Amino acid sequence: MNVKFSNRMEKLKTSEIREILKVTQNPEVISFAGGLPAPELFPVHEIKKISSLVLDEMGPESLQYDLTEGYVPLRKQISERMNRVYKTELSEKNILIVCGSQQGLDFSGKVFIDKGDVILCESPTYLGAINAFKAYEPEFIEVPTDDFGMIPEELEKILNQRHDVKMIYVIPDFQNPTGKTWSFERRKKFMEVIEKYKIPVIEDNPYGELRFSGEILPSLKSLDNLGLVVHLGTFSKTFCPGLRVGWICASEHILEKYILIKQGADLHTSSFSQRIISKMLENYDFEERLSKLKELYKKRRDLMIFEMKKKFPKNLKYTNPDGGLFTWVELPEGFDGRKFLEECLKNNVAIVPGGSFFPNGGHENTFRLNYSNMSEEKIIEGINRLSKVLNEFEY
Amino acid sequence: MNVKFSNRMEKLKTSEIREILKVTQNPEVISFAGGLPAPELFPVHEIKKISSLVLDEMGPESLQYDLTEGYVPLRKQISERMNRVYKTELSEKNILIVCGSQQGLDFSGKVFIDKGDVILCESPTYLGAINAFKAYEPEFIEVPTDDFGMIPEELEKILNQRHDVKMIYVIPDFQNPTGKTWSFERRKKFMEVIEKYKIPVIEDNPYGELRFSGEILPSLKSLDNLGLVVHLGTFSKTFCPGLRVGWICASEHILEKYILIKQGADLHTSSFSQRIISKMLENYDFEERLSKLKELYKKRRDLMIFEMKKKFPKNLKYTNPDGGLFTWVELPEGFDGRKFLEECLKNNVAIVPGGSFFPNGGHENTFRLNYSNMSEEKIIEGINRLSKVLNEFEY
Repeated sequence: MNVKFSNRMEKLKTSEIREILKVTQNPEVISFAGGLPAPELFPVHEIKKISSLVLDEMGPESLQYDLTEGYVPLRKQISERMNRVYKTELSEKNILIVCGSQQGLDFSGKVFIDKGDVILCESPTYLGAINAFKAYEPEFIEVPTDDFGMIPEELEKILNQRHDVKMIYVIPDFQNPTGKTWSFERRKKFMEVIEKYKIPVIEDNPYGELRFSGEILPSLKSLDNLGLVVHLGTFSKTFCPGLRVGWICASEHILEKYILIKQGADLHTSSFSQRIISKMLENYDFEERLSKLKELYKKRRDLMIFEMKKKFPKNLKYTNPDGGLFTWVELPEGFDGRKFLEECLKNNVAIVPGGSFFPNGGHENTFRLNYSNMSEEKIIEGINRLSKVLNEFEY
Repeated sequence: MNVKFSNRMEKLKTSEIREILKVTQNPEVISFAGGLPAPELFPVHEIKKISSLVLDEMGPESLQYDLTEGYVPLRKQISERMNRVYKTELSEKNILIVCGSQQGLDFSGKVFIDKGDVILCESPTYLGAINAFKAYEPEFIEVPTDDFGMIPEELEKILNQRHDVKMIYVIPDFQNPTGKTWSFERRKKFMEVIEKYKIPVIEDNPYGELRFSGEILPSLKSLDNLGLVVHLGTFSKTFCPGLRVGWICASEHILEKYILIKQGADLHTSSFSQRIISKMLENYDFEERLSKLKELYKKRRDLMIFEMKKKFPKNLKYTNPDGGLFTWVELPEGFDGRKFLEECLKNNVAIVPGGSFFPNGGHENTFRLNYSNMSEEKIIEGINRLSKVLNEFEY
């Protein structure tokens, strides 16, 4: 039976990563493809204690319908932490709780984008954001991006030419997929351009707290004098993804649009998940938790980069990120990342070809590696396998 | 700072119910306005035990990223129960887990509706569905509806005239807001029309299991020979709303579109919530739980209807539903439901004016009453207050 779907459905396809992840369910495969945090550090024991405590102390309230905006004490905790860590000036009135920051991406498309509107993004950018935005049928323009972030002069050139730009999407900290972080200088210059042209900015920040070296830099939100920046955060990488709790920070007149969208989309985020996270923040040392995470991820990044240096061919480049979960590999023109993946899978190792991270295609001579989810032993063996394939692969 | 939002944002306004509920936070107010289940029957103690069990038995897996489709054992449990209760023939491949059936409404708009497309619905229909669909900028046509459901001849008349109908939204069991249930005859005739015109149907069924009298009737999904019906279910009314777990049942070629949308919208529903519900279904007697719920709600419905009969003016009509959470009151033309609400709030009692349940306006001479959430004592006192206002109100 052929039924007629909406036009947007023609543009959507399943995330390449999701499809690769299905193959990597096979325990023989060493997967650097996903973006999963290390499960061995999930606070299983603590969540067990806290779940009981929440139900004992708050009873049925923790299982009832809740405010669309989210649980007020959690929104206060988030705004206070944001102010301390990212130098913002927010109150709970600037916070909406959502089901992971992915939901913040979908809502951003819904709040700002009509069919044909332009979204500017880094080149490359996060695949999951491209997929979320595509449902609103935008045109993507990739802004030239170097090791320090989006290039402000290039951004300004585009904003001068195009008057249908509705939103700019960026990941300034430990970007997915490249692992790169914008410099402080770049952030300031970017915000100068933004304030001149007055375009809303979606600042996606899932990895910001996972910094192994150097100091956390001020967020774009903290440099936002006109209330143009919508900042997305999440507990998926710092606690665990399975509770699906993230947040949106924005000035009140923008946030009220997101709240309207949240009402229609799913009424509110799980009352129980929100209270578990709020109690966790209250009863456990979050800094200590972050230290452990950063220690493990730094060890794995160091090991992966060390093994790559030792074994990878010399004609490729890769990033050595100061935080986050990913490194990004660039090969000479002519390298075919998708064909390369096929060879990798024959050798029981998985990567994500980089092409999917460019909304307008091209750049098949790249791939992304994740170092957070595999044990040290598997990182060594996985890089062995990858090196073998790379050395035999023709391009 | 004025930023430019998408066109859809102009059409969205906050749900009237949400705004009324804010006023009714005042403990002096007796509220028949919401649609909250009775918190005194939430399985707090059981969820406490089950949460521990899930974390003990499944550990980090229950907190990690999950399949977009949902937790396979829960999808099996749902399909088996659907087949038993609603006479469908589904497997887990027909089930997508979502964040409450409200998310199923939003996704239905996204999957089927382009700007200007027509949605047919009952008259009146669920306010939360109207709000969810509005984000996709449809035209609503209300199909004349009587005590037995949507009138098939009227439906066919519209389908003959309009060729831009993309979807039909209905709530055949204990409808929100009227409490009415479609007869079996009506269901069969409706499906005959549907199969002739081949239009997708969204069958929203949050209350179906809460039947106090008579037998559960076959769902539209069970009468769906061509795979046109998308059935929405939820645990919000049978366990508790705060875990935000509902589901979408559809034929595979339709469900795959919803799965794509789910990926972009929020990746997946809480892994932890899904496992809690699955274990609850496994370890506790669901039928016993339903019996208790139905017993309490029947008692409250009986009491509310008894009090209304005794005290309300004789020139109004109301439904006496066989299940669900609501009764619907109709007054003579000229009665102004919104002004009436203002008077009610002055007397510390709340209702929802019926006008909001008609997507194209009008019908202000109606209101909705909820009987599931207030104690017996409050039902008596609340109907007293309402009667007083009604008797003094001019129309």
